[in-house]
Formats: sequence, structure tokens, C-alpha cells
Amino acid sequence: MNRRDWLKSFAATAAPRPAAPAPNRVELKTERLTLRHKWTTVMSSSDYRDTLHLAFTSGGITGRGEGAPIVRYKESAESARRAVESVKGFLEKADPGQFWKVLDEVFRRIDGEWAAKAAIDIALMDWMGKRLGVPLYRYFGLDPKDAPVTTFSIGIDDPAMTREKVKEAEEFPVLKIKVGLDTDEATIEAVRSVTQKPLRVDANEGWKSKEEAVRKINWLEKQGVEFVEQPMPAHMIEETKWVRSRVHIPIIADEASLRAADVPKLAEAFDGVNVKLDKTGGILGAYRMILMAKSLGMKTMLGCMISSSVSISAAAHLSPLVDYADLDGNLLISNDPYEGVTVQRGRLVLPDRPGLGLLPRKRT
Amino acid sequence: MNRRDWLKSFAATAAPRPAAPAPNRVELKTERLTLRHKWTTVMSSSDYRDTLHLAFTSGGITGRGEGAPIVRYKESAESARRAVESVKGFLEKADPGQFWKVLDEVFRRIDGEWAAKAAIDIALMDWMGKRLGVPLYRYFGLDPKDAPVTTFSIGIDDPAMTREKVKEAEEFPVLKIKVGLDTDEATIEAVRSVTQKPLRVDANEGWKSKEEAVRKINWLEKQGVEFVEQPMPAHMIEETKWVRSRVHIPIIADEASLRAADVPKLAEAFDGVNVKLDKTGGILGAYRMILMAKSLGMKTMLGCMISSSVSISAAAHLSPLVDYADLDGNLLISNDPYEGVTVQRGRLVLPDRPGLGLLPRKRT
Repeated sequence: MNRRDWLKSFAATAAPRPAAPAPNRVELKTERLTLRHKWTTVMSSSDYRDTLHLAFTSGGITGRGEGAPIVRYKESAESARRAVESVKGFLEKADPGQFWKVLDEVFRRIDGEWAAKAAIDIALMDWMGKRLGVPLYRYFGLDPKDAPVTTFSIGIDDPAMTREKVKEAEEFPVLKIKVGLDTDEATIEAVRSVTQKPLRVDANEGWKSKEEAVRKINWLEKQGVEFVEQPMPAHMIEETKWVRSRVHIPIIADEASLRAADVPKLAEAFDGVNVKLDKTGGILGAYRMILMAKSLGMKTMLGCMISSSVSISAAAHLSPLVDYADLDGNLLISNDPYEGVTVQRGRLVLPDRPGLGLLPRKRT
Repeated sequence: MNRRDWLKSFAATAAPRPAAPAPNRVELKTERLTLRHKWTTVMSSSDYRDTLHLAFTSGGITGRGEGAPIVRYKESAESARRAVESVKGFLEKADPGQFWKVLDEVFRRIDGEWAAKAAIDIALMDWMGKRLGVPLYRYFGLDPKDAPVTTFSIGIDDPAMTREKVKEAEEFPVLKIKVGLDTDEATIEAVRSVTQKPLRVDANEGWKSKEEAVRKINWLEKQGVEFVEQPMPAHMIEETKWVRSRVHIPIIADEASLRAADVPKLAEAFDGVNVKLDKTGGILGAYRMILMAKSLGMKTMLGCMISSSVSISAAAHLSPLVDYADLDGNLLISNDPYEGVTVQRGRLVLPDRPGLGLLPRKRT
């Protein structure tokens, strides 16, 4: 959005409206997102993912949020829905202009269930951006031209299918390869048989001993891999520190770093952190975790779960802040209900509409 | 500002304006602020303070900032002015809607000179709040009713004058007493001879051995003191940890904690941090430092240098986030050029006008 358009947007969005005496409306819906390919990581294998969608309406403005429950933390779309329902009465009476205070209270009332929290936070921030008439990247004072390239993720598969997926991802200048099983070398060799692009590798805690991790990473260094994510189980911080001193590419924490408070204790074992809205409980928590990591001199990355353009666009608005992005969750599904952030030759293109900038997509 | 007024403010502030082709305007002025009483702390004694004022105009909107140079860090109004002048050309061409990016670059270009950075940050955030048509507390999603009580500070003086100052501060339910010289007991006894209010004590690094610090604090505990600020020199973190284990009131870091990055290493030695815009380089850095401390489970406090209502109002808009406020710098001077945050029976009352909410004050 250039400055002239931005000024216009104020006129367009700020026509006088009557104050809303009615309570806010909170609507929930579970969306079953269909995967283009069966998705296999160290943790699971499936054809679809259910995410929780939330529409928050106040004063004639609707903000949309989404939470993708993380199985590793015993979350499901159903448990997320129950968590939001437990604070629905509170949200119906809340002033969304006091979103910091509202979210502080929501976080106090809900134990765990970070996807539910993310859905609420994202909906409130979308609402606030629309109320102010600015895209969220501008709310945060960022330049959309600084949005980074996103990797496209290749789930674990047999060599033939891996080659197929890599060819489909031709548009993306950097790929993220899921490893962590005993097929790692075969997977990387399959990728390298069809492309010489830079790779980033995600082991999802798959390597169980520090010696194995060093051996795998030393091999990956020779395969044009830029960094490796979460080589060992989250609790093995001392072992990861040992590994870090023996490898030559950055190690990024994912499962080990859920929220801002987790980051200081990782500063010696990891070079950076992967920030995900479904771990932090939304945009504000992600912003906070990014600032924390930057303050500690660590690299920052925005990642995602498999989700629609609601959650991915929310993360993308913060992406001008980070070193790396892996925001392809919406590209892995075939029935995205919204259009928001798009990708041009791998680069994230932020929508310049207010809030998240979502448009409903016609179902085909 | 209630919701109806807020909605109205959109209509009022968002009338269509032509985009500004002209460069931004950056105007600097050094204000000599006259102290009501000669101000003595461990560090200095004076009748006035010079602060740097900045007016940033873009697209017909002017944002105001202020920086109060800190002598301890070899800053002066003159060095602050030179620092701002070194980035003036950059600011004239910058897009203030990209304030995060602009400030990131300013912080990269200016070495030290945090008061200069604060003046720039505050002016840009005032501009942004005005552009969006909301007070900064609302930009941050806060409830102005959560703004805390501010202490009123009593500088070091002889017992008779100390009693006089305490009587003048009758309106304030909590006082902050400056100590750290060899007159500490006499000062506290003078205060206690006229009031039984809760006190907070600031030693400004004045106690040079850990044994002295423990002895002083153990005595202060019996005098109704709620917490003590920076008992020992900033670098004596291990000694402060030793002191902390031997006292029964919280210890708050001031000189030891300048910015967010300083906080993690203090978590074991201090219970909380005093955040000042002239240390962090403005509002965004203060917000970041407050979030950092909260993530580490520490108490948070907003403090200030002697400055006008520009800087004090900027801090006050964040005050609903913190446990303690010591935002009286504008109350200690007799020639404040602006009206912004006010105080009612000690409680901070945030202006509900856009941005900082400043109004020029008629000089008498």
C-alpha cells in the first residue's frame, strides 16, 4: 500500500458508525483442510488437518482468527473449541480496543490450548487493524518489501514421490526438507538428484543421540544445507550445545522454544528460534518472542502448522522482522477458505487491505 | 476515551488529506526546564535541566518527542542534538508509517545517545497515534484505568527541607526517597517525622559494599519501605544477588538495566527493573524491555528523568502494563511547555487525545 492509498483507506474505513450497544459476537467453526499430498513427519501422517476458525464481530467489524492444534501438546480442534467456549461470555462483553488487556485475561483463564489462544489473538488483531484501517504490517511499522522468501516444505516420502514434490516446488528458491527417520540420506539424495537449490532441514527431534546428530549434520553441511531445525528432543539442551560446538551450520530451536520465556535458556545451545503463532498463542506472543530472540542476538524464523490463509497471513504480517520464513501451511492444502498473503517466486507478498487483509475464496 | 468518542475520533481525524510530496520536517529545540527545588541525588545537584525537543512533521501531522540526556552516560543536550542532526536527512525522507524500520535504521546509525533516540522514537509514535486517530494507550491495546499510582520523588536535602518537600507532596499516596549518601538515616527520619505513607527508596548505586547495603536495607525494611532501587553500583551483580538473599523487600535494577538485552543476566540478582525511555531509546524499546522482564517473571517499573510532559506522557501511555510508576519528572519543573498526562490523588490520568495527547501550555 503506498502512502496515497493508505491515506485514502482512512477515509474509506472511518466513516462515522454508531457505537454498538449489542454484545460482541463470537462464532466458531472447525475447518477440515485437505492436504494436497499425504503429510508425513516424525510425528504423524495424515490426509487432512482440522483447524479452529473464529469470527469476532464488534461494532460492525469482523476479525477472523485460526488456531491449528498441535498434537504433540495434546491439543485437538475439539479441545481448542472447548477452550474458546470457556471464555466466550468474557469475549462477548470485552472491549476489543483493549486487546492487550483482553488477551492477558484470556491467557490467564485458559490453561494450555495455545491454538485456541492463537485463534482469539488473531481475530482481535484483525479486528484492530480493520478498525484502524491499516494492514497489520503497517500497524507494526514494517515495510512489506522486507518480507522474506518462504521455504516450501517437503514432507517425508519415498524417493520417487520426494523427487515429484521437489519438481512441483520449482517456484521456490529454497526448500525445507523434513527428515529425522532412518531414510534421511535417501531423502536428501532424492532431492539433490533433481535440484541444487539451498535446503533447510527439519529433524523434528528425530535424532536421539548427540553423536548421531553430529554425524547427520556434518553430512548435511556437505549437501548445501543452510541450517537444521531441532535435531534432538526438546529437553536435550545440554546435548544440543555439545552438538552445536561440532557443526558448522546454524541450529534452530522449534519444539524446544514455544514462547518468549523459553528463549533465554536456549541462547547457548541454539543459534535461533522458530516462532509459530500456534505455539505462542497468536500475533502478540509471536512479536514478543521475536523481540526476545533479537535482544539475545539470536536468529529469528517464522514457521507454521498446516493451516489456512488466516493463520499464515497473520504470521506473514510480522515476517519483515525475521531472518527466515517457513510459511507454506496454506500452500499444502487444496481447500483454503481465504485468500491473504500470496507468494511470488518464493517471496511473501503481504495483502495491503486492513487487518489481516483476507478475502473469502469461492469454493470450487 | 469511551467507545463512542473513539468512533467519533475516527471521523474527526481521518478526513481525506492529500498525500504529502514535500519532505518531512524535523525541528529541534533545547528546552531549559527550571526545577522547583534544587535537585540533588548521588550523581549531581542542579537548578535546571536541558532536554532536547523534536517536532517531526509529515503529511500535515506533527509528532513531538523529547530526550533527557543522562550525564552518567556522558550525554548532553548538545550531544543529543548532534546525534539527531546526523540522521536528519534520513528522517526527512523516511516513511513514518514504517516506524519500526525507520527506528531500526536510526539505532544502527547512532552510537549511544539514547536520549536522542528517545526523542526520535517518541515523535514518530506520537505521529503514528495521531495518524491512526488513537491515543497511544489504545494503540497498545491498554485500559487507561489500569494506569498505576506514581510516586513523587524527594531529592536529597537537609532534614528541614526534606520535611517541607514531603508536606508539599501531600497529594501523593506513595513517595520515592532518594538516598545513597551518609545522610540516609537522617533523611528517612525526617520523612517519617511528617508522614507514615509507604515509601520507595532509590540509592542510585550509592552503597559501595554488600555489607553496607544489607545493613541499610534491613533498617529500611522496618521503616515501611516497599522496595529499594539500585542499592549498589551497576556492575556489582553478584554482590547484589548476595544482598537479595539477605533482605525482605524487592530490589529493583535501574542503572544495571538499561535495555531489554540487559535484563536476562539480572534475573537472579534483582526482583524487577526500572524502565526509562531515556535508557531504552523511546517507547518501543521500553515496551520491549517491559515484555522481556515480564517473560522472565520480574516486576516492572516505569521511571523517568527530569523532563517535560512530552517524555512523561510517552511513558505514561505504557504505564497500564507495569507494577510501579515513578513518572513525576514533569511535576518537578515549573515551566513545562506542554500538558499531557495529569495526576489525580497520585494516580496517572492518561490523555484521551490521539498520539501522546499533548496540548501546548501557555507560558506564564
